[in-house]
Amino acid sequence: MPKPLVVQKFGGTSVGTAERILRCARRTADLVSAGHRVVVVVSAMGQATDELIALAKQVNARPPERELDMLLATGEQVSTALFTMALEGMGVPAAGFTAHQVGIRTDGVFTKARITGVDAARVEKALAEGKACVVAGFQGVSEDQDVTTLGRGASNITAVALAAVLGAERCEILTDVDGIYTADPRVVPTARRLEKISHEEIMELASMGAQVMQTRTVELAKKHNVRLLVAASFGSGPGTLICQKEPGMEEVVVSGLVLNTDEAKVTVQAVKDEPGMASAIFEELALRHINVDIIVQNVSGATGCTDVTFIVAKTDLSKAVDCVKGLVARGLARGVAADEGIAKLSAVGLGMRTHAGVAARMFKALAQEQINIQMISTSEIKISVIIPGADGQRALKALHRAFELDGPPAGSGKPKKDSKRMKS
Amino acid sequence: MPKPLVVQKFGGTSVGTAERILRCARRTADLVSAGHRVVVVVSAMGQATDELIALAKQVNARPPERELDMLLATGEQVSTALFTMALEGMGVPAAGFTAHQVGIRTDGVFTKARITGVDAARVEKALAEGKACVVAGFQGVSEDQDVTTLGRGASNITAVALAAVLGAERCEILTDVDGIYTADPRVVPTARRLEKISHEEIMELASMGAQVMQTRTVELAKKHNVRLLVAASFGSGPGTLICQKEPGMEEVVVSGLVLNTDEAKVTVQAVKDEPGMASAIFEELALRHINVDIIVQNVSGATGCTDVTFIVAKTDLSKAVDCVKGLVARGLARGVAADEGIAKLSAVGLGMRTHAGVAARMFKALAQEQINIQMISTSEIKISVIIPGADGQRALKALHRAFELDGPPAGSGKPKKDSKRMKS
Repeated sequence: MPKPLVVQKFGGTSVGTAERILRCARRTADLVSAGHRVVVVVSAMGQATDELIALAKQVNARPPERELDMLLATGEQVSTALFTMALEGMGVPAAGFTAHQVGIRTDGVFTKARITGVDAARVEKALAEGKACVVAGFQGVSEDQDVTTLGRGASNITAVALAAVLGAERCEILTDVDGIYTADPRVVPTARRLEKISHEEIMELASMGAQVMQTRTVELAKKHNVRLLVAASFGSGPGTLICQKEPGMEEVVVSGLVLNTDEAKVTVQAVKDEPGMASAIFEELALRHINVDIIVQNVSGATGCTDVTFIVAKTDLSKAVDCVKGLVARGLARGVAADEGIAKLSAVGLGMRTHAGVAARMFKALAQEQINIQMISTSEIKISVIIPGADGQRALKALHRAFELDGPPAGSGKPKKDSKRMKS
Repeated sequence: MPKPLVVQKFGGTSVGTAERILRCARRTADLVSAGHRVVVVVSAMGQATDELIALAKQVNARPPERELDMLLATGEQVSTALFTMALEGMGVPAAGFTAHQVGIRTDGVFTKARITGVDAARVEKALAEGKACVVAGFQGVSEDQDVTTLGRGASNITAVALAAVLGAERCEILTDVDGIYTADPRVVPTARRLEKISHEEIMELASMGAQVMQTRTVELAKKHNVRLLVAASFGSGPGTLICQKEPGMEEVVVSGLVLNTDEAKVTVQAVKDEPGMASAIFEELALRHINVDIIVQNVSGATGCTDVTFIVAKTDLSKAVDCVKGLVARGLARGVAADEGIAKLSAVGLGMRTHAGVAARMFKALAQEQINIQMISTSEIKISVIIPGADGQRALKALHRAFELDGPPAGSGKPKKDSKRMKS
């Protein structure tokens, strides 16, 4: 029976300097000493990727994507070689591999390739020889043997794909935070680190604006039933385990809260209340690649007109307003109003499926704080409300209390103040 | 009939910044416009290789060579991607390739791999599609698909190997000097740029200490009859063509002079004049990897003892002296003397083969300057003398006159003062 296998992925900040690489390698060496087979996936060092992009723009304002990928992939190749050297220096037999050497095959869509297959035979051979393997994250190789990259932050994708193919016990995502919290600890000092959370909840939290794992990574992990452990690279905390729904998980009605203040509200005023009007508005927005979140349409009044309100990212606001102005110019609406002074507060929890009254509890808590709800949106495991931006942090704290999320962190220690998770 | 093919190799200084890459790419674009097919070989940008080595040493004082090669190869991959982007930005269709993509196959001797074969099918295909090809120098790929490097400065090897396989009209070595000179122009202001010189002469000059092309590169070029053009990356000078011996070349008795002041003289005093003594000395030196140049043994005197004198690099001097002290301790010699105050002056020329009296002319010129010759060594196309270091530059100038090398440079312009060729 082979030793249990763990995939460890270290982010760019964690391997940002030689000294940090040595500290991360020590963590890997300890895991090897404890009787594990280990595959390490590394990102590029610190700001390496951004620096390479800046260099590319100096020689070509619109660098061709094939060569951009060839360029960017060097970032992870450097950290792979250095991490392997560090392990060897600690007496841990190790071998580093590029995506080409591992056999991380992708389609030929440069800068955002999708993995089509992972051979991993070479990694399995090295593991069988008792070596720790270090693999360059973020990259793959196309059928034409061209270097491809998987998109920003996609070293996590590499790690999950390897964990799936190799049947790893878990995939550790080691980063600069010590886990996932019930809410952003910088806003809610009483926020607790979650011990366990389901893939689905993390996906909802991410799509609501929490800066946790990318949805794409969690989706892949869910599909292949890979257990993800989010923990701090430097520290011994137990972190947060993202896994399949387990008995006991259902008992928690709300797992986490997210406050998102990066969005704005657009109101299309006095739209003619006729069939096809909504589609006219949102087709226009889609054509300009503007993602729309919550949409609310008022009941039509005596005028035969209605207001349509929707939420967009602040970065898309001026584009969205321009778009609506076009409709106004064509006489399809009377005017447009934009409001950047809003916040979206979301509660996510598997327990909502089985527990009635979660929405009522949320609205009651906000009413007690005299906070006005402007819009509401729900899914099976999520409730979001749009509220005045100025009330955001107070509302977040009130809900954190109302859903009984306050308390000392599960497990060891106090929540880290530098946590970036559940960022508002 | 396909367009003539030129391989252009740009050194690290030439591609040291984005701005310099753009200037080099302009040179390539001009060659393409002039109706050539072009394959560009690039070194790593400026000090990139040294920086990567320094980084490696921070994580492991003795970095494993396999990972060192994986690390260093990123330097050329970066400049390859950037150079290709620069060409594309100028409207020149281009494609960049790593050694793996080209098919530069090597043995598995990391950090000093030898090329075992070059496929180049992919480069030929891209050329046929009308693309300029940019290839990462200095690197190859082993049978195990591991990244290998070919040794310091070996981007020239990549360029010559590609020129040979592709049947290029010439291989341009573009660098920070504008050609090869009859002597170091910083010492001899009247030194002339050579228009043409044979592979053999360049090899002798290089081995005598001239900082021209590495012997290994010229050997490979000679073997495959590749014509090398050494010229400045930034400038329009004609450079120096290194090619096979051609009619007319023989007429020049001496092509170039080299003054080397990086060596020292070691004298083993009162060695017993018995068979096997010389081999005892030089076996010891070889065991410690000390390269020995000129060796002179005095005629044995009445004492039955003799002095043996040889030349080593100054960097090896203390090791060599220690080595001889060991012989003294074993009673095989009486003592050792070291002299760092020497210079080696060499004259190289194909014409020596057919012209008698070259040595006499050399010795006479030195005698007229009252310069004492300590040691002499000759080969078919070379004469070297060891003289007092303080007389070195005066001797070099005297010989330059004596062999009628003074004069305006062949071709255009005056010799560049910043030339590094024929460095003393």
